[in-house]
Amino acid sequence: MAYGYNSKILRVNLTNKQMSIEEPDENFYRRYMGGRGFIAYYLLKELQAGIDPLGPDNKLIFATGVITGGRIAGSGRNSVGAKSPLTNGYGEAEAGGYWGPELKRAGYDAIIFEGKAEKPVYLWLGSGEPELRDASHLWGKTTLETETAIREELGDRNIKTALIGPAGENQVRVACILNDISHAYGRSGMGAVMGSKNLKGVAVRGKNPPAIADQAKIKEIVMWLSQNYSKGMQDLGTAGGLMGLNQGGGLPTRNFREGVFEGAESISGQTMRDTILINRGTCYACPVKCKRVVKVDEPYKVNPEYGGPEYETLGSLGSNCGVDNLAAIAKGNELCNAYGLDTIGVGTIIGFAMECFENGLITETDTDGIQLRFGNADAMVKMVEMIAKRQPNFCKKVNQKRQGIGDLLAEGVKRAAEKIGEGASEFAMHVKGQEFPMHEPRYKQGMGLGYAVSPTGADHMQGLHDAGSRDLGTDKVRTFLYRQFWSSFRNCAGICVFLPYTRNQFPDIIRGLTGWDVTDWELMKVGERCLTMTRAFNVREGFTKADDIFPKRIHQAFTSGPLAEVGYGEDRLSEAVSMYYDMAGWGRETGVPRKGKLQELDIEWVADLL
Amino acid sequence: MAYGYNSKILRVNLTNKQMSIEEPDENFYRRYMGGRGFIAYYLLKELQAGIDPLGPDNKLIFATGVITGGRIAGSGRNSVGAKSPLTNGYGEAEAGGYWGPELKRAGYDAIIFEGKAEKPVYLWLGSGEPELRDASHLWGKTTLETETAIREELGDRNIKTALIGPAGENQVRVACILNDISHAYGRSGMGAVMGSKNLKGVAVRGKNPPAIADQAKIKEIVMWLSQNYSKGMQDLGTAGGLMGLNQGGGLPTRNFREGVFEGAESISGQTMRDTILINRGTCYACPVKCKRVVKVDEPYKVNPEYGGPEYETLGSLGSNCGVDNLAAIAKGNELCNAYGLDTIGVGTIIGFAMECFENGLITETDTDGIQLRFGNADAMVKMVEMIAKRQPNFCKKVNQKRQGIGDLLAEGVKRAAEKIGEGASEFAMHVKGQEFPMHEPRYKQGMGLGYAVSPTGADHMQGLHDAGSRDLGTDKVRTFLYRQFWSSFRNCAGICVFLPYTRNQFPDIIRGLTGWDVTDWELMKVGERCLTMTRAFNVREGFTKADDIFPKRIHQAFTSGPLAEVGYGEDRLSEAVSMYYDMAGWGRETGVPRKGKLQELDIEWVADLL
Repeated sequence: MAYGYNSKILRVNLTNKQMSIEEPDENFYRRYMGGRGFIAYYLLKELQAGIDPLGPDNKLIFATGVITGGRIAGSGRNSVGAKSPLTNGYGEAEAGGYWGPELKRAGYDAIIFEGKAEKPVYLWLGSGEPELRDASHLWGKTTLETETAIREELGDRNIKTALIGPAGENQVRVACILNDISHAYGRSGMGAVMGSKNLKGVAVRGKNPPAIADQAKIKEIVMWLSQNYSKGMQDLGTAGGLMGLNQGGGLPTRNFREGVFEGAESISGQTMRDTILINRGTCYACPVKCKRVVKVDEPYKVNPEYGGPEYETLGSLGSNCGVDNLAAIAKGNELCNAYGLDTIGVGTIIGFAMECFENGLITETDTDGIQLRFGNADAMVKMVEMIAKRQPNFCKKVNQKRQGIGDLLAEGVKRAAEKIGEGASEFAMHVKGQEFPMHEPRYKQGMGLGYAVSPTGADHMQGLHDAGSRDLGTDKVRTFLYRQFWSSFRNCAGICVFLPYTRNQFPDIIRGLTGWDVTDWELMKVGERCLTMTRAFNVREGFTKADDIFPKRIHQAFTSGPLAEVGYGEDRLSEAVSMYYDMAGWGRETGVPRKGKLQELDIEWVADLL
Repeated sequence: MAYGYNSKILRVNLTNKQMSIEEPDENFYRRYMGGRGFIAYYLLKELQAGIDPLGPDNKLIFATGVITGGRIAGSGRNSVGAKSPLTNGYGEAEAGGYWGPELKRAGYDAIIFEGKAEKPVYLWLGSGEPELRDASHLWGKTTLETETAIREELGDRNIKTALIGPAGENQVRVACILNDISHAYGRSGMGAVMGSKNLKGVAVRGKNPPAIADQAKIKEIVMWLSQNYSKGMQDLGTAGGLMGLNQGGGLPTRNFREGVFEGAESISGQTMRDTILINRGTCYACPVKCKRVVKVDEPYKVNPEYGGPEYETLGSLGSNCGVDNLAAIAKGNELCNAYGLDTIGVGTIIGFAMECFENGLITETDTDGIQLRFGNADAMVKMVEMIAKRQPNFCKKVNQKRQGIGDLLAEGVKRAAEKIGEGASEFAMHVKGQEFPMHEPRYKQGMGLGYAVSPTGADHMQGLHDAGSRDLGTDKVRTFLYRQFWSSFRNCAGICVFLPYTRNQFPDIIRGLTGWDVTDWELMKVGERCLTMTRAFNVREGFTKADDIFPKRIHQAFTSGPLAEVGYGEDRLSEAVSMYYDMAGWGRETGVPRKGKLQELDIEWVADLL
């Protein structure tokens, strides 16, 4: 009997409605652990290179980790992955919340969705057999409407849902999946993949959590954490650092043109706490409560059920759009959660569109009269909605098809810029097609390296927060590499980054839950193994070093602010990337994992796929 | 202020008698830790490639680790290293005992000897300034005579010594260094290097151990160990497994020609316990007492002050010479400790000589009438003495110089076989010039891989004890590689292998002693780093994959016994070695550490030396 997990992975073929259970052995769980490990494993084993991410050949995998649902703070975490419609490479997103632990209590560690349903469906996992139910009546509905309807029709208010909104249905490439309405699997366009499969949601309700190997040890961890978590995080949430970033010149402003935002104070965590915050939300078993719950009545009406903006959202819909109107940002955030849009991606898209507008690449004719300028809060809110709905206002740039601006931008900055032409690509802040998060690479240069080499494109979940540092030498690259291993492990295990557990507590946590006598070395190797698998996935899709790059803007120096004259030279990045490859045991110029490294990581089977 | 170490390394130039103190920073200690880490660091930085190991340009380095002297069982361990006169590559030997902890209490973590004294000297480290004292009167004396004399002349019975005997003085290539008379730094010919420098010994007496960061944590470890150490190891010592090896067909017998010895029971740990054992010895702070103390009156008189034979000695002077006479083995062991000879090396040499004799490559004329046949206990004992003294009986094989058989064999099997010619090399069981220890590579195939790739030649301190396994696939090679990292860490830290501490206890131990917040990952990386440095040393000396090989005999199958038909094919070894290199981040066919690996390990400076 297994501790800490169910030994059950549910496979759902949406095309023919067949469902089956797989029961991998302990070795599989200990080697890959869950989350990214499972996702990369199945995508590598089961996808062919070159398939359409939005076609039926893609697979969408929800995966908990061995820690997910493990009764300790931070264990709400879990991942979802597929080939990304943004990057055409490895796609993955993480979220906290309650859905992952609920899935585990329902008896499953992961779900693999394959094929495409003929009509909209949702999956219901309750105490009986798994059931694919009609979702035609839910199609087009917001996440809150959908969750409410599902709970009503199944007669259980405690059902947890992972859903897409209209954005996912419309296959907006920055569409996300939301669980509990406000916890987003944000990045990589996973909502679009779900939409392409006609899968509206996964509703779960379970009552049997996996057994725990050492209850006393887990209780000890819970007690320790209750004395040691961050009160600052509770007070201000993830936005606590916004003012510091702005002071340092590293707050992405007006599409990464600047690093200082004159309206920063209006959108800070402090201002939010003192004005629109009405509550603090949290995840399963977690006393930290870093989530925000906000309420606004005017000029925008914001429903607190959708939570409130995190730092990334304050940056992307705020400073990055030049918007200092906190109520508008809260509204944009609410719409993103209601329609199922990644706030990061959509904010970076709107910032891009605003710069295009200010430079005449998009005009009022395209926007149907909207003054899509930096600082126009109304325009920002309106664009969120238009992107989610692919609203077909006339757009002259692509007027041969009479494609609307919302429809155009729904493709993400990379594709939109290609259609607009005329130098719009210079304003498209992305790596591999995935939009920049709200960390300025010239300010956090180790984070920048992460943007360049992350398997999912510009991604802030595995970089260094090395604010103010200009160093990119061997120490920095090594620190980044090791941090990436650790982030990768956390993803596999299903544990949040915002907890103060020490590295030496993790062997205890994993042993307490599973009974495995692991060490920090083994856990780091899990992370390294699964990171290398994601690289292998991209190599198979044809990615090379030429894809591990920045948009030009980052290579140029700031012209003002505390970081005036600071850039991130192309050679500098290229050298760091090569060193990173070599340190990782990949070809120094190719980034292709060496056979010996795959053998060392116990994934020799991957070599046959490259 | 440092915990756990002194921040003091003593440098002694024997040529000009200058001494100086170096005080490396915490970063140095945390990165290299001591032992092998210090030795490889200084040898790489300070030696030129191609120097004569027995010339004044070689350096001899005694190095404790951060655990050495740390009040816990197993902390008696420490290392000594130099370029090896056996292999002309990286040389190193470990020992337990009391001398290492005493050195630390005297205020030093390591001693670097350079140059060559004009006349014999010994170094005295007491409460005053370090002092080089005349040792002319001690030259030629046994270790016990020397220790007694030094204690008398310095007036302190508690002085601890690390000494060479006549073998080291005579630069016998398998000469060792002994501390406390019976703890041998056995391998790599370190005694010959010491002799070549006219350095008879290092006498130390100290009263100020380094402070401990967390006394309570260390006490907890001591308490735990007192309840958890091996009673079997105490009962039978390292010889407890001899009968099992014999049963499996893996007890080196008659120069590795066979794996089953008909006289095994006579030389087993059980027989020793029930006959000649009068006491159990131990090391600093250790309750295990794995060391033997034996007393024999006839037919050989064996002085218990020299301890007793360990498993390696029972094999090398016993089964490997076909000798089933425990008293003779005990006598051979006593002579080795008195004269300062590595019992492993000398036993393998005698086995080699016996096979040469039986095959007519050495005759009675060469041996001055000694019937140097397998099973001749007297001959074995006599040869130990003749090798130590390079006794110049006539030897026709090299009669142009009238070199004696003792003198010839004192060069080790590789050089002796080259001189003898006529196919003697087939009987020379060594890798890179270092003689085989008593583990049969065809029986422990992972251990065999260790013999091939160890930086010091055939060495059992870092291999796998994978008795009976024939597997050499990726799992085996990876397990071996990781074990090597761990052995390397233990060497650097100064901790014995025979303690049941778990991997997860080591971060606690190191943190308890030093205050460093280390994890298992960091400790493994220390081991990997320092292992890679030893490989780099050998690469600089010109070693290639062609040196990572076995003598032919191991490639041939056994003709009888439980392992009949089992060999260790050349291709099989070659493939495992290449895989090992690649897994280690070294060139798959060259074994040269890649730049990216050196950068990852934070030893980029090594790249400039290759």
